[in-house]
Amino acid sequence: MENSGEQSPQKVEEEVGRVVEQAKELQDSASTYISRTFSDENSLRQRALSLESSIRRLRSLLDSILSSKLIDPKLAEKLHDDLQRARCFLHDGDAAAFLPSKPQAAFLRMFLGPINVRASRKDVQLKVKEEYNSYRDRTALLFLIFPATLLILRSWIWNGCFPTFPVQLYQAWLLFLYTGLALRENILRVNGSDIRPWWIYHHYCAMIMALVSLTWEIKGQPNCAQKQKGVQLFLQWAMMQGVAMLLQNRYQRQRLYTRIALGKAKRMDVVWGETAGVDGQLWLLYPLLFILQGFEAYVGFLLLKTAFVGVVSEWQVIFCGVLFVVMAVGNFTNTVDTLMAKSRFKAKMKRSKSKPEL
Amino acid sequence: MENSGEQSPQKVEEEVGRVVEQAKELQDSASTYISRTFSDENSLRQRALSLESSIRRLRSLLDSILSSKLIDPKLAEKLHDDLQRARCFLHDGDAAAFLPSKPQAAFLRMFLGPINVRASRKDVQLKVKEEYNSYRDRTALLFLIFPATLLILRSWIWNGCFPTFPVQLYQAWLLFLYTGLALRENILRVNGSDIRPWWIYHHYCAMIMALVSLTWEIKGQPNCAQKQKGVQLFLQWAMMQGVAMLLQNRYQRQRLYTRIALGKAKRMDVVWGETAGVDGQLWLLYPLLFILQGFEAYVGFLLLKTAFVGVVSEWQVIFCGVLFVVMAVGNFTNTVDTLMAKSRFKAKMKRSKSKPEL
Repeated sequence: MENSGEQSPQKVEEEVGRVVEQAKELQDSASTYISRTFSDENSLRQRALSLESSIRRLRSLLDSILSSKLIDPKLAEKLHDDLQRARCFLHDGDAAAFLPSKPQAAFLRMFLGPINVRASRKDVQLKVKEEYNSYRDRTALLFLIFPATLLILRSWIWNGCFPTFPVQLYQAWLLFLYTGLALRENILRVNGSDIRPWWIYHHYCAMIMALVSLTWEIKGQPNCAQKQKGVQLFLQWAMMQGVAMLLQNRYQRQRLYTRIALGKAKRMDVVWGETAGVDGQLWLLYPLLFILQGFEAYVGFLLLKTAFVGVVSEWQVIFCGVLFVVMAVGNFTNTVDTLMAKSRFKAKMKRSKSKPEL
Repeated sequence: MENSGEQSPQKVEEEVGRVVEQAKELQDSASTYISRTFSDENSLRQRALSLESSIRRLRSLLDSILSSKLIDPKLAEKLHDDLQRARCFLHDGDAAAFLPSKPQAAFLRMFLGPINVRASRKDVQLKVKEEYNSYRDRTALLFLIFPATLLILRSWIWNGCFPTFPVQLYQAWLLFLYTGLALRENILRVNGSDIRPWWIYHHYCAMIMALVSLTWEIKGQPNCAQKQKGVQLFLQWAMMQGVAMLLQNRYQRQRLYTRIALGKAKRMDVVWGETAGVDGQLWLLYPLLFILQGFEAYVGFLLLKTAFVGVVSEWQVIFCGVLFVVMAVGNFTNTVDTLMAKSRFKAKMKRSKSKPEL
């Protein structure tokens, strides 16, 4: 093809004709391919949907004949396990790509429009999750370093008073960061992650707080120590948050690796092996999370106090104070919920292990 | 299937077995389907790439034998047109989905991570564009109404002084709006839109400006008329911007409809028919755009003047002033470029129409 030594017009004309032919053929194959995949995907989607409704129907049927004692409890449990296995095939395997996704969140539509952000291949979905974790890792480090630097400079160079610009830079960075996190988490959700909705709401709250704190006048001469108390508390809380994020990331990454490894070996065991080998870290992580949440509520109450005692009377102080308390309460209840779900799961595991394998 | 009248354990056991079988089968079909589409897409991608390089090679070959007078100029022109036709097949047809997309912009990666936002089907791509236009329509109206309301309330109710909160609300809305626009435009670009990069940079500038203006203290008692001059100018400019956006949207929507209609009828004519029937509006749109850009530069210079004369000496004023001037200059040069490209295109059309059809 590439012997451009022969440049006679006839040869060139022939070649051009061939290229036009090829372009037409390619266009035909492409449109055939696209319409074929469209109908193939539709039929897979239909099968996935009908299978899911069958599973749901059989489950409730099983429950009803078990409660009316028409079936041996042992058999019922075996059948329940079988259905659970079918459900795992459907939801954790390749077929999951053809189940209707959770409706795209309004948040994504607001920023991106109606574009589809769902990856159909499982390995791409895992890569998205992996990138999300590494993004969290990078930000967790900055989350620690940025406020620490501000606090150190404050006592060493700035004589106890924050200048406006670096603090506002930090707040703008927070706004960008939380927007990115909220967008990514919504994308993860569309891709089948079971992230609790609260953690996304939490990032919406944090976005709003960053935005509000940008409009918050922090110059505060004279008497900056008192006026900037809120900023200082916020930065201290952010440092703790950074440490907690680093620990959480370590934990979640190991969970993901277990998931990938098991997913490759035995896809069905994904759920069962999830917490293997990382229990030790939880004893460090959870107390830290609770301390963090306590501190968060404390910062909120302090802000409200300064607002009502009358040192600083801007609406931003009250707003951020309330937001802090709301976030602390939400974080606490959701962490407790997660802990309880984990221990319920463990108890169930122990019961099923003490029985002979089927 | 749905006759749950028969609830004997045997029946249920059979049904559960069938469901587990179906789940396994579905899993198999799904993974076969996914790996098959993967390899099919790869081969289409290969063909599209090699075709594109052939077209490029033949083009330069044609140019070289034309300049060394080895070919009849008429034939050369016909062959050039043929190659252009092949290129249109490749780039405007279904095959375009398999050409490598423009690399995903850093901006998208920053906010969304490495998720793919490219739609493979042409009609989905057009729907994305259509939604973008309707989004612009909605925002253009708000763009007009929001600052107008602020300006009216200022003289009617607020006695010539803007209160802080509504202005900051407006600035936060601008920040959200420009972020949304910049994200959507980047998505459009990945989906093959030929939007000029400047218009996206322009929205990055506007994002930064909205962010900076949020930190800008506008209370300004005493003497608010002088201190808030910048805000007032900005709002007036924003109103003009709203009108220009509405006109621009009307024009671009008609262009898109022409494109869709022609794309359905004769795909190859897409490029030729683009400006049909909308020339009249350009005589209104372009002068308005130039006035807008002049006003933009004027606002920038006024801000710089107030900063250097010393009425307001915050860094935000200088920063926004410089940004306004940069945006005005960039907008102007890009509008002129677009105009010149359009008139070159028209001249070419006239020439080709005066020749007999091939």
